[in-house]
Amino acid sequence: MANLSLLLAAILALSLSPVMEATTLKDFCVTDPNSLGCKDPKLVEASDFYFSGLHIAGNTTNPAGSKVTPVFASQLPGLNTLDISIARIDYAPWGINPPHTHPRATEILTVLDGSLEVGFITSNPENRHFRKVLQKGDVFVFPVGLIHYQRNVGYGNAVAIAALSSQNPGVITIGNAVFGSTPGISSDILDKAFQLDNPTISYLQSKF
Amino acid sequence: MANLSLLLAAILALSLSPVMEATTLKDFCVTDPNSLGCKDPKLVEASDFYFSGLHIAGNTTNPAGSKVTPVFASQLPGLNTLDISIARIDYAPWGINPPHTHPRATEILTVLDGSLEVGFITSNPENRHFRKVLQKGDVFVFPVGLIHYQRNVGYGNAVAIAALSSQNPGVITIGNAVFGSTPGISSDILDKAFQLDNPTISYLQSKF
Amino acid sequence: MANLSLLLAAILALSLSPVMEATTLKDFCVTDPNSLGCKDPKLVEASDFYFSGLHIAGNTTNPAGSKVTPVFASQLPGLNTLDISIARIDYAPWGINPPHTHPRATEILTVLDGSLEVGFITSNPENRHFRKVLQKGDVFVFPVGLIHYQRNVGYGNAVAIAALSSQNPGVITIGNAVFGSTPGISSDILDKAFQLDNPTISYLQSKF
Amino acid sequence: MANLSLLLAAILALSLSPVMEATTLKDFCVTDPNSLGCKDPKLVEASDFYFSGLHIAGNTTNPAGSKVTPVFASQLPGLNTLDISIARIDYAPWGINPPHTHPRATEILTVLDGSLEVGFITSNPENRHFRKVLQKGDVFVFPVGLIHYQRNVGYGNAVAIAALSSQNPGVITIGNAVFGSTPGISSDILDKAFQLDNPTISYLQSKF
Amino acid sequence: MANLSLLLAAILALSLSPVMEATTLKDFCVTDPNSLGCKDPKLVEASDFYFSGLHIAGNTTNPAGSKVTPVFASQLPGLNTLDISIARIDYAPWGINPPHTHPRATEILTVLDGSLEVGFITSNPENRHFRKVLQKGDVFVFPVGLIHYQRNVGYGNAVAIAALSSQNPGVITIGNAVFGSTPGISSDILDKAFQLDNPTISYLQSKF
Amino acid sequence: MANLSLLLAAILALSLSPVMEATTLKDFCVTDPNSLGCKDPKLVEASDFYFSGLHIAGNTTNPAGSKVTPVFASQLPGLNTLDISIARIDYAPWGINPPHTHPRATEILTVLDGSLEVGFITSNPENRHFRKVLQKGDVFVFPVGLIHYQRNVGYGNAVAIAALSSQNPGVITIGNAVFGSTPGISSDILDKAFQLDNPTISYLQSKF
Repeated sequence: MANLSLLLAAILALSLSPVMEATTLKDFCVTDPNSLGCKDPKLVEASDFYFSGLHIAGNTTNPAGSKVTPVFASQLPGLNTLDISIARIDYAPWGINPPHTHPRATEILTVLDGSLEVGFITSNPENRHFRKVLQKGDVFVFPVGLIHYQRNVGYGNAVAIAALSSQNPGVITIGNAVFGSTPGISSDILDKAFQLDNPTISYLQSKF
Repeated sequence: MANLSLLLAAILALSLSPVMEATTLKDFCVTDPNSLGCKDPKLVEASDFYFSGLHIAGNTTNPAGSKVTPVFASQLPGLNTLDISIARIDYAPWGINPPHTHPRATEILTVLDGSLEVGFITSNPENRHFRKVLQKGDVFVFPVGLIHYQRNVGYGNAVAIAALSSQNPGVITIGNAVFGSTPGISSDILDKAFQLDNPTISYLQSKF
Repeated sequence: MANLSLLLAAILALSLSPVMEATTLKDFCVTDPNSLGCKDPKLVEASDFYFSGLHIAGNTTNPAGSKVTPVFASQLPGLNTLDISIARIDYAPWGINPPHTHPRATEILTVLDGSLEVGFITSNPENRHFRKVLQKGDVFVFPVGLIHYQRNVGYGNAVAIAALSSQNPGVITIGNAVFGSTPGISSDILDKAFQLDNPTISYLQSKF
Repeated sequence: MANLSLLLAAILALSLSPVMEATTLKDFCVTDPNSLGCKDPKLVEASDFYFSGLHIAGNTTNPAGSKVTPVFASQLPGLNTLDISIARIDYAPWGINPPHTHPRATEILTVLDGSLEVGFITSNPENRHFRKVLQKGDVFVFPVGLIHYQRNVGYGNAVAIAALSSQNPGVITIGNAVFGSTPGISSDILDKAFQLDNPTISYLQSKF
Repeated sequence: MANLSLLLAAILALSLSPVMEATTLKDFCVTDPNSLGCKDPKLVEASDFYFSGLHIAGNTTNPAGSKVTPVFASQLPGLNTLDISIARIDYAPWGINPPHTHPRATEILTVLDGSLEVGFITSNPENRHFRKVLQKGDVFVFPVGLIHYQRNVGYGNAVAIAALSSQNPGVITIGNAVFGSTPGISSDILDKAFQLDNPTISYLQSKF
Repeated sequence: MANLSLLLAAILALSLSPVMEATTLKDFCVTDPNSLGCKDPKLVEASDFYFSGLHIAGNTTNPAGSKVTPVFASQLPGLNTLDISIARIDYAPWGINPPHTHPRATEILTVLDGSLEVGFITSNPENRHFRKVLQKGDVFVFPVGLIHYQRNVGYGNAVAIAALSSQNPGVITIGNAVFGSTPGISSDILDKAFQLDNPTISYLQSKF
């Protein structure tokens, strides 16, 4: 039982010294599913920097008619601390990637197939809308934190690759966050914010 | 005219060498209204670090029933490069500061007077809503980039001070950005994103 | 006892892999009093982003005649990793917040009540002193790392809110650090640094 | 000519106040070809965030049998300050993207077509080589500053999209930098560094 | 005169678009004495990355008995944006480098010759004093923003090299900033802060 | 055994909440060999900020004729999170510090004794070589991530101090990484990259 006491002491020591480490201490820091730290470098393998399957089209049979397949640090543990990630986005005809923001990343999108209408809106007071129709091979930038969207405006499916400037950029879909949060935002606030009547707000809240 | 040639050469030299400077080169870098650089330190005065008038209540006679008085780098040039700013927020009874994000800052809000219901919503897929009713002297944090709001739930006016972790945090009011951008977002996108019919979207767009 | 061995192995694994994580991995990272990492997001509550009591005047019955009530990450665990914090400062008549620096933050101060003389001093070789008398509603900036102070120059109490650009800005009160450290700085050094005789230095060291 | 004097004064003022600005002052900062600062936001257009032509295969008729088509801030001015960029890489059969580093970026590579052998080598003392053969839809990460390469190991052409965590990541091709610099590195240094005789070093220097 | 108008327009354009650039846009950004931007890379020479004379002892015939020879960005323009600098420090017997802080840098000091007593003091509330006597070849770290000092405790001269984590770390000598600022801090504040009588404060202010 | 269950629960809690902490939470964060976090501040001693022996010449009896003695965070635990480190470099006559990069740091080098030829090469497409012969007291800068080298061009030994802008800068010696990795890079790639025949590549791989 002496060992147990030592263990308790170790746990206590861990508990009492807050973690504070630089993000650039080493060549890499692969997420370790079994600890709070980096995976032991001796156990790291090439597969820790690898992800497969991005050639497979996402299932767009959903109301938005689009599907995002993320390759963030949760999917690719070698991305941890390295400030970048990507995603594949599939769009059915007329499908949309609805207005959303990335709270921790800029996005650069490349159209692999099809035609997309894309846009972003600047902050107050201008709320200026930058909009462009993209074809295969076109590239567009959505600056960090700004609301943006894409819409398939071609006759077939569309596909894009999006690169993001964080290993965990976060996605805030405006509709889901505002009308579909758990618990919901008080309808008094939403009524006033969107100048809609209570039934319309309730309808919206039922949809998300 | 020799001087003119020299001038042209100087302008050209300026044009050709892109600017790249550290943010921590000096004790401070007061915004210079007459150049791209810092105000000449010899001309900097205490008033460059000063702003007055934050004791004056903002005019809340508007649909939201609230008014934000910002003290950002545009209002206080000494804040430039220093990664902080503040704002006073006034709320008429039942007034709201509608759902919005700061793309470049966390916010910490302190209630000076009255009662506020406040909340923020996390990113996908949880869209969890953290909500609290605050009284005078209460403090609340809205993490960077997340959608948040406040609402006066007391019987009188309410006042808060918000501090933000950027000298120019940006404000994106969801309603204004989504329904009031210039030019407007295509109604096809908004219909699908919010699952509303065309007349409701048009009504919303007319309101912002 | 097989479990105990597993435990020991787990502890060892923890010990051997140094921690290296990005500061922006998630929407937030609430300090967890029971571990080195973030509090489990599922257990996070609105109260983790909340602090109360900033409307209560601090007790200024002390030699300086002032009291700082901090709301840093230690007091408000939801501030962790979010690069901002605040404090309330109370001043008795003629009370001072003595010369000090924040090694990790810029400060922006707003006067809620009373009149304050405030100032900061730039680095060598200028040691220029920027000074201003502030009234209720006035705002002033103290750039990161510079020595600054406040003094109540009105006839009643004064109150200010200070926002700082770090969740743990640190406070170095010059007198306490130079004359009140544990153990004390050698009097030979202080004599020479301040060109004071030994008795005066000893007197100073007895005061802090 | 009074205007000319004013101009001279303005130029002088510009010359004397060093530039020091935060990277996050605004929603974006499009590179302005005519000045050191950001393009006037009022003149910014959607095309500033746009690049076209990434569907066009690069010409791989060169000794390496590969071609990189960069979309960095020089090619896409809206990327300025936003910490991300991309590139298309084409590979002829058996073509290589020879060993190189990006001094300012991590890279995440996605195979669009064909089969690639890829790898990177860690820093001293391990110099561990992480290697993987990738197929269409596979993704791989090259951590910031490490030497890495790709090689087409399929029978046809291969194509990849690389995203990088900087708007100007820089590329240092090892062979070109070591053996092809202008002027060349002294052969005494190269002989000793690579333990090769003078004729071999001269041969190498003639090749780059 | 058409050119002159164009010039005026160019100057105006410069004036109106605030500068906002990344710190990592290029391999380097040598300070340009003639503009706000980087020196034209084509004109950069090896001498821009070079400084000479650090083998020459500084003149320590002064009250402190020490002399700092800085090699910061002002002395070595190639250091601009690169987050590092160094200094040589000479100490006469019993000379001191009096208590000071670097608001923007950590320091790592190496003793080249002689014996130094060195120390730093942590922030409130501990104000803990870490102290060590160093000999030739010894190295010591002073964390960013903390008050620190050195004192020659050997019988001959002492010499050290200090490296700092900023190209312009700033130096705040406590005595000079507190008692020697221009204009002086009000004696009422200093009396109270240091609990000294007016004559002693006046004496101190006369010394700095 | 109740304690054991608690322990298991604690370990699990640790495992499930990923670590995410700011780098500037405290005055310092000394590496703790027994945990993932900072050493308990109460147990930190002056010796944690101390390293000795940099006056001792490194053993240069090796093919390169040089020896680097690093003082990085691994050697000096108090450097952790503080973004700086140093190294002593010894050179036998005609010894070289072969071409290498630091993936995470700029270097500033000071010659303490002897004469050094030094240089660095810029990124593509220029691959410009900046070169200088340094004497005692001369200082030179190698910007972050660029390939650089030193060579003793005097008749005796040479000594330099290098300061680096990271507590763990990393060292990538080009020869070792390209020709001496474990496992080796495929000779097909090296043949093509360096346009050498198979025997020469095999010879090179046998040397590293």
